[in-house]
Amino acid sequence: MTDLLALTAELVDRVSVSFEEAGFVHWLQSELVALDHLEVTRVGDNLVARTNLGREHRLILAGHTDTVPVNHDPALPGGSNGFARIEGDTLWGVGSTDMKGGLAIFLDLARTVPEPSLDLTFVFYAREEVPQEHNGLAELARLRPDLLDGDCAILGEPTDGAIEAGCQGAMRFEITLAGARAHTARPWMGRNAVHRLASILTELASYEAREPSIDGCSYRESLQAVHVEGGIAGNVVPDRAVLRVHHRYAPDRSADQAEAWFRELLAPYMDKDDSIEVIDSSLACPPSLTHPVLQQLRDHNGLEVRAKLGWTDVARFAELGVPATNFGSGDPAIAHTRDEHVHRDSIERTAAALRSLVT
Amino acid sequence: MTDLLALTAELVDRVSVSFEEAGFVHWLQSELVALDHLEVTRVGDNLVARTNLGREHRLILAGHTDTVPVNHDPALPGGSNGFARIEGDTLWGVGSTDMKGGLAIFLDLARTVPEPSLDLTFVFYAREEVPQEHNGLAELARLRPDLLDGDCAILGEPTDGAIEAGCQGAMRFEITLAGARAHTARPWMGRNAVHRLASILTELASYEAREPSIDGCSYRESLQAVHVEGGIAGNVVPDRAVLRVHHRYAPDRSADQAEAWFRELLAPYMDKDDSIEVIDSSLACPPSLTHPVLQQLRDHNGLEVRAKLGWTDVARFAELGVPATNFGSGDPAIAHTRDEHVHRDSIERTAAALRSLVT
Repeated sequence: MTDLLALTAELVDRVSVSFEEAGFVHWLQSELVALDHLEVTRVGDNLVARTNLGREHRLILAGHTDTVPVNHDPALPGGSNGFARIEGDTLWGVGSTDMKGGLAIFLDLARTVPEPSLDLTFVFYAREEVPQEHNGLAELARLRPDLLDGDCAILGEPTDGAIEAGCQGAMRFEITLAGARAHTARPWMGRNAVHRLASILTELASYEAREPSIDGCSYRESLQAVHVEGGIAGNVVPDRAVLRVHHRYAPDRSADQAEAWFRELLAPYMDKDDSIEVIDSSLACPPSLTHPVLQQLRDHNGLEVRAKLGWTDVARFAELGVPATNFGSGDPAIAHTRDEHVHRDSIERTAAALRSLVT
Repeated sequence: MTDLLALTAELVDRVSVSFEEAGFVHWLQSELVALDHLEVTRVGDNLVARTNLGREHRLILAGHTDTVPVNHDPALPGGSNGFARIEGDTLWGVGSTDMKGGLAIFLDLARTVPEPSLDLTFVFYAREEVPQEHNGLAELARLRPDLLDGDCAILGEPTDGAIEAGCQGAMRFEITLAGARAHTARPWMGRNAVHRLASILTELASYEAREPSIDGCSYRESLQAVHVEGGIAGNVVPDRAVLRVHHRYAPDRSADQAEAWFRELLAPYMDKDDSIEVIDSSLACPPSLTHPVLQQLRDHNGLEVRAKLGWTDVARFAELGVPATNFGSGDPAIAHTRDEHVHRDSIERTAAALRSLVT
């Protein structure tokens, strides 16, 4: 049996910070093309490797190849987290959690299960840790959507061996409030746009999150001011204030519904010269746990099931009509931190559940 | 009798934008030293010209020599407001209101009243229209406070021939609110510092101005947010928000009292990691209209008397123990605008009142 902690360590040592994944992808490609049962296609820095066994179902196993930047810190052993370090059953290093553990599991399945019980599509895609316009999965969906055909998908993002079902949608609004400039000695000649933020911020501060339950998963929405700015000069009543609000909504709502809800919430405070603009929108993904393959993953392994409150690329699969869920090794809470690490147990539990699903 | 509109035009044509007053000051100096009854002292780009007649009272007539920058605009006759243009009894040009009309009146008094009934100190000072650390009157007070000795002072700022008595104090506060960062998918793990602005902005928006009456002048305080900022990234709960507030307070309060009042107002909303800092403070100046010379100015000319709501250099005289008031020609509402102009009548009324006071 493969030592998956050692294989993860090997992948961590093949550093692949966003936009610099090419070397790692090249190595991964050479590993995959050596396997006769896989049809390998490269699109840019994205790799797709598929079995073609005519099975009833096709399962997509997807993961991103990039990591956040290496952390250089004299306090770390060796001065950085840019290489693998194993202590007992713990592996330290950037990407150990997010998500080279998941990639190691996929690579091991590709190498060791030539005749899976479902057809498999392995998707290794680039540039997930950077703004969405660079995302390799989006690039694949645009250039070769046929390669993403499948009955359902599992995204190997760190969930510590639990199923984190679907994901919430995310929408960023920019609210611009108008006012009228005046000298601060005569503020009644103007209208203070910053003061006008008071009602909206009070509304946000007193917001009570909706917590719908879908397929037995409890979502929890959120509404947070993430940016505020306003002000002209030290003695001028500001005529403009800008507030950005991040709203995460559960997958029982569409983006249109979420937007309409927000506009209605703020309607009492908006005047004719004010505006609300959607500056960013990422769709939600339903938990999809009623799909037979994903149901089997859950039921045959006694896995914990949680709602995914953040946003992940499962939503891209949902947009393509492919039910998807998050399932991978490593604690998501320490992803992107200096002290990112993963335990052998987390990788082995995750790998065992996937292996039992595909064999 | 001097044509004061023409003299003001001559001064407007001697352009003297802040920091570039030297040429104008040099010319003014040569005009003043030619007058035998005046003792002229130059300190930097500031000029002081004094009579020494041993009169009972000494009156200071003070004005700044600089103007705001010239406005270049093809829509203006000649393409800029950087030169004098007379149409009928109206003079157009930068500084016509603020405050070359006042300087023309002072220069004419210096030239034509060799034996005034009070001793006179003419103060022409540099760099009033720029941040206070450059202020020429402050420079004089620091280097040669003896030159600013006097019983009372009249500052020739534009008041359109009314007395604008004293001035309100001004204080800028910076309020920093703390929070705790969290991912916007799990906002309950953090504390949103921008949301915390809600209570303070509500307090500011519902503020009711105190309007004390002093020496028959009605002041009106103000409290205005002039700057707000906060936000880390589009998906992070902000752990810090900064709000700047400008407070103008009437001269029946000291700076300490104004600060204490503000701190008490915000106390209910402040936590231990928050802070309120005074980043700027300019003292108030009482109206001083009970001083016999200023009382005479008011009573013998039937002048309108208003409280000065903004801040002017009269406060510097108050700090030196010299009662002071604002009295000059030109409409303050059009000072600093592209279309700055002054009417002959405004200059002549102001000049007549001052002439009757000193002869």
